[in-house]
Amino acid sequence: MNTFGTLFRLTSFGESHGPAIGGVIDGMPAGVVVDMDLLRREMARRRPGQSALTTARQEADEVELLSGVFEGRTTGAPIGFLVRNGNQHSADYDSLRDLFRPSHADYTYYNKYGLRDHRGGGRSSARETLTRCVAGAFAKMALGRLGVKVTAYTSQVGDIALPDDYTHYDLSVAETNAVRCPDAGTAARMAALISDVKAAGDTVGGVVSGVITGCPAGVGEPVFGRLQAELAAAMMSINAVKGFEYGLGFAGVSGRGSEQNDAFVPDGQGGVTTATNRSGGIQGGISNGQDITFRVAFKPVATLLREQKTVTVSGEPTTFRAQGRHDACVLPRAVPVVEAMAAITLLDLYLQDRARRNFGE
Amino acid sequence: MNTFGTLFRLTSFGESHGPAIGGVIDGMPAGVVVDMDLLRREMARRRPGQSALTTARQEADEVELLSGVFEGRTTGAPIGFLVRNGNQHSADYDSLRDLFRPSHADYTYYNKYGLRDHRGGGRSSARETLTRCVAGAFAKMALGRLGVKVTAYTSQVGDIALPDDYTHYDLSVAETNAVRCPDAGTAARMAALISDVKAAGDTVGGVVSGVITGCPAGVGEPVFGRLQAELAAAMMSINAVKGFEYGLGFAGVSGRGSEQNDAFVPDGQGGVTTATNRSGGIQGGISNGQDITFRVAFKPVATLLREQKTVTVSGEPTTFRAQGRHDACVLPRAVPVVEAMAAITLLDLYLQDRARRNFGE
Amino acid sequence: MNTFGTLFRLTSFGESHGPAIGGVIDGMPAGVVVDMDLLRREMARRRPGQSALTTARQEADEVELLSGVFEGRTTGAPIGFLVRNGNQHSADYDSLRDLFRPSHADYTYYNKYGLRDHRGGGRSSARETLTRCVAGAFAKMALGRLGVKVTAYTSQVGDIALPDDYTHYDLSVAETNAVRCPDAGTAARMAALISDVKAAGDTVGGVVSGVITGCPAGVGEPVFGRLQAELAAAMMSINAVKGFEYGLGFAGVSGRGSEQNDAFVPDGQGGVTTATNRSGGIQGGISNGQDITFRVAFKPVATLLREQKTVTVSGEPTTFRAQGRHDACVLPRAVPVVEAMAAITLLDLYLQDRARRNFGE
Amino acid sequence: MNTFGTLFRLTSFGESHGPAIGGVIDGMPAGVVVDMDLLRREMARRRPGQSALTTARQEADEVELLSGVFEGRTTGAPIGFLVRNGNQHSADYDSLRDLFRPSHADYTYYNKYGLRDHRGGGRSSARETLTRCVAGAFAKMALGRLGVKVTAYTSQVGDIALPDDYTHYDLSVAETNAVRCPDAGTAARMAALISDVKAAGDTVGGVVSGVITGCPAGVGEPVFGRLQAELAAAMMSINAVKGFEYGLGFAGVSGRGSEQNDAFVPDGQGGVTTATNRSGGIQGGISNGQDITFRVAFKPVATLLREQKTVTVSGEPTTFRAQGRHDACVLPRAVPVVEAMAAITLLDLYLQDRARRNFGE
Repeated sequence: MNTFGTLFRLTSFGESHGPAIGGVIDGMPAGVVVDMDLLRREMARRRPGQSALTTARQEADEVELLSGVFEGRTTGAPIGFLVRNGNQHSADYDSLRDLFRPSHADYTYYNKYGLRDHRGGGRSSARETLTRCVAGAFAKMALGRLGVKVTAYTSQVGDIALPDDYTHYDLSVAETNAVRCPDAGTAARMAALISDVKAAGDTVGGVVSGVITGCPAGVGEPVFGRLQAELAAAMMSINAVKGFEYGLGFAGVSGRGSEQNDAFVPDGQGGVTTATNRSGGIQGGISNGQDITFRVAFKPVATLLREQKTVTVSGEPTTFRAQGRHDACVLPRAVPVVEAMAAITLLDLYLQDRARRNFGE
Repeated sequence: MNTFGTLFRLTSFGESHGPAIGGVIDGMPAGVVVDMDLLRREMARRRPGQSALTTARQEADEVELLSGVFEGRTTGAPIGFLVRNGNQHSADYDSLRDLFRPSHADYTYYNKYGLRDHRGGGRSSARETLTRCVAGAFAKMALGRLGVKVTAYTSQVGDIALPDDYTHYDLSVAETNAVRCPDAGTAARMAALISDVKAAGDTVGGVVSGVITGCPAGVGEPVFGRLQAELAAAMMSINAVKGFEYGLGFAGVSGRGSEQNDAFVPDGQGGVTTATNRSGGIQGGISNGQDITFRVAFKPVATLLREQKTVTVSGEPTTFRAQGRHDACVLPRAVPVVEAMAAITLLDLYLQDRARRNFGE
Repeated sequence: MNTFGTLFRLTSFGESHGPAIGGVIDGMPAGVVVDMDLLRREMARRRPGQSALTTARQEADEVELLSGVFEGRTTGAPIGFLVRNGNQHSADYDSLRDLFRPSHADYTYYNKYGLRDHRGGGRSSARETLTRCVAGAFAKMALGRLGVKVTAYTSQVGDIALPDDYTHYDLSVAETNAVRCPDAGTAARMAALISDVKAAGDTVGGVVSGVITGCPAGVGEPVFGRLQAELAAAMMSINAVKGFEYGLGFAGVSGRGSEQNDAFVPDGQGGVTTATNRSGGIQGGISNGQDITFRVAFKPVATLLREQKTVTVSGEPTTFRAQGRHDACVLPRAVPVVEAMAAITLLDLYLQDRARRNFGE
Repeated sequence: MNTFGTLFRLTSFGESHGPAIGGVIDGMPAGVVVDMDLLRREMARRRPGQSALTTARQEADEVELLSGVFEGRTTGAPIGFLVRNGNQHSADYDSLRDLFRPSHADYTYYNKYGLRDHRGGGRSSARETLTRCVAGAFAKMALGRLGVKVTAYTSQVGDIALPDDYTHYDLSVAETNAVRCPDAGTAARMAALISDVKAAGDTVGGVVSGVITGCPAGVGEPVFGRLQAELAAAMMSINAVKGFEYGLGFAGVSGRGSEQNDAFVPDGQGGVTTATNRSGGIQGGISNGQDITFRVAFKPVATLLREQKTVTVSGEPTTFRAQGRHDACVLPRAVPVVEAMAAITLLDLYLQDRARRNFGE
């Protein structure tokens, strides 16, 4: 389905080559000042054509807010919005009508629905993720009132990986380079790799890391609404994502429990903190007040500027070579999408906790 | 919340040291023959005390079906069930009342709810996962009618990992050893490692791999109900899980798109198949008819038979040493839980697809 | 489906002649003192055999709480519960196996599911409503902390109707007679009517009226979560209910707007109240702080101790005469069910409002 | 919340005086031919200014489809749509900024959200119901493939009521008069009453009756998803609705069970039908294959062209007289909205039944 969330939720619609892409943000708390600069900035971060590393498509991605905002504040009513599709080269896709692109959604949509909008991937296009950035911007506005900050950055491209975790970097540096990596030297090497891959008509994947700071303890709903389960569903709903982990993740499986537990210690202010944070800020599915850390794996996108073997809709062998303008590496543009989905998820679970917290007192 | 699923769903309840653990299975298709042997087998696979490698707790885990079954078939009505808690050594947990065990849910529950049932982890106990196995057994009964088979196995314990993917093993071998690894030699090494770790009062993690065969194309709902997103949420809701990936997963991020695409080829019967299956059986969030493959990372469990530093409920430093009977490695018992959650997820999405498939024709 | 509610919800299971009926209450706020007397009282009000007016079936309806309560308080974990079915005269129903009782759910269940548990109506039995009373009792415990009180009473049986609205009666009188009507004289006439109808092997319907006092303004979610929409769904889910109205309801359609508007006036304490309450306490789908009033129509139940024409499962004409012990009028026992569903609905919407209220300040 | 439905669902957004009103239709089966004439006809039936009896506001209500349709068929992707607001006389509403209109949602929205868009009722405006007609049109397209037909008509205005049920009229006559009443003589009297009331600056209510023909048996989900419960929630979510009943409804409470049961009889084709249809086509929450009948009570709308007492936002007494163009009776324009909500509800439950039907065979 096309709705994500329980109390704060995004319903999205739109195909890459239809009239528009948009959505409805429901459950936004009322009275929050709408920060249009923040909204535009998030859209600009996701926008194609933002640097030499991304697709050359130029899309303004101007968001039109249709409801739910009055005199500069949210009203509690649903926020309808849309972005008109422009600069479409639909003819680039004519050749797709009768074949299935390898490792795209062409075949599965066709099988499931019996027909498909073949232009630019239709509903399966990553262009849909712009709706996440709109909803994410509103979630960030609400979370900002609570002092919660969601940050993501590119931590790996191909086999070039940042050697250390987020505590070793100034994360604001990530926004100063086209790759969105917080280490300038690594960023330069990543950029060079992307350029090489692009020149070869190929693509490359990578990892986006996320950090949420300032999240109060208590966010997350056992048993099936665990914070990590909701975050995972959020991230795995992004195009090209193949894996999700939090805290030590897959790397932690080879160690021992005695090396990984986080000892509780007094925080010096009458409260409790942990001496380490291998848990990634979540215990028992609920935030513990420490930084929440997670990683998201993106595969190399399937669109290659090379000839590939495939079959036609009627099952005949054929070959296919992508036309059009495509990203050789989605990581730079995926960073704001990861942030958006994390913000949406966190606000939703925060509101669920708020609904019942301290009720019995 | 304590409900998982849309059309086929499990609502669970119960604490490890309360009177019972149970749940309600809603949306089970009517008329399916109830295979009680299958149900008992799944429970036995998850049961504590099943081998020298697992906790010595002996729990019969006899499932009582309370509704929804009549004369050996499902009726379409919800299936209520429960398992009485027995063999409880609640006194083992008296010392937990006033402190927070490191890397457990003690602190986060206390913060969220203002009080907690401290006995055996209460609601956060992995004993809750038995409800997944009950619902999973019914999901398997329904999926069996479709020829869908869900299999999981232990592919890594600590740093001992199976070198190859599932196509290189006879997966039925997994059920012939206590570790549930399909390679007897590797299983023996894993068992030895678990024994060593247990003797040291420590714990160790690992990876469970899953394979779904026979799944028709078309299962999975774009955009937010992607099959991988629902599977991820399902797996990340299991205690001790830290990561999820499908297809090539995290390993695929360092390769190139040209190395990872799955070329479509005629299947020789008028249909379409893929020459390779790096996608893990899912494209665009929808099953493509190939085997669905995924991996789930389990951390070393937090309960150590060693002294650890922590704080009391009032924030004073103290130390803690677990009493009672615990698993040094949850992997063997996690295998059926992973299968159960996969089966529940798949049946739910299958029914969603079935609701609308071929409607317009 | 068998779940009602969003943040506070009941999932129910069970057939009248299976082992047990029960459910799971999810989302109960933590820390609320569990009032077992209240719970038992609610069960006793719904219990068969409570007076000469109701069915002679004697069922203890002892509720067993299985989870979610610790040391006398709710923990925030789901509350599993069950009531064992006893005193079953299943043989009374043998004759039902092969025919469809008129105006019962026999045919529709059989059509929908392809098979049915014919004993005592199976899942369609009103015995399921005991789960509402359990969940309603917990909702009342939570609402009690807020000063919200939910009261229902029998206002009509057959054509004997209370002439005035609730403001003219001492509603506590309703619990002093078997009919649950707050006017003793009218109650006596209603009781006589029920006795007459029962003696004739017939049945009679009526109206239950509900009043919610102390509800703060702001409860109810526009547009589809309107308080009246959720109340209506709640009431229409009760067996034998044929209609729902609030405020002036159907009677108001023939008047004029100028006669029905509720003028706002200062409440003398700096706030706002209304001079009249024809709106029934709800405006725009949201409570306005006045008493919430509604009415629920119950048909005469379909089980007659008379011979009726019907058909067999294979479509052959036959006749049917109910055996067993049945209510000639469900109104007295429906009163606590109506209260329970109102309490569940109100708490759910209250929590939804609480989640976002005053967020932007 | 602003989403209705489970498998087929409408999410709506928009205020009467914002840029646009629109929504997202999710779960529409793929491959259904889009009947744009049907869509335009439904919009025209709800449109203001359609006759002398309705508000003089002239709104074109041109629907723009933004997604989910390709080459004249639905694709299975969500259908985003919007209607631009035009012909707004926002200045008509300036006087509302600082006061609460009697029996409107002004006060409750203000209390709930802390601020409100006062122009034309904002989110509480009945203009939102146009989104129901769009989604309803698509639901009708799908239901049309099944032979299901949803029809509503005005059966009462003020105290002028049709004397007989739908079987006595040619329902197509309803669309030939401005009141939408299937009896021309009664329609004329209703029209005269509305004109009189309008001339007096007053308003009047009425009843819309609905009939669903061709619905197969088996639609509706016990226990909480009963067809009548979902229909009730659907209808009670429409502005100005105060009551819902089906079958004999409130009128049936005074009769006897022996007078109201519907005897099953052979249908002459090997199946089963009922000799009468007092049940209104639903038994046990599930359609039985007979016509589904229900009635919806609309109050006289609250907007009067007369002076009324009220209070300001700060609680001071004041008076208010509505400006602008308003309906003296909403019934004629409510008919298509009732049909739309019925169609949406029915398709949703039909799909839920389809998901599991005949699974076990």
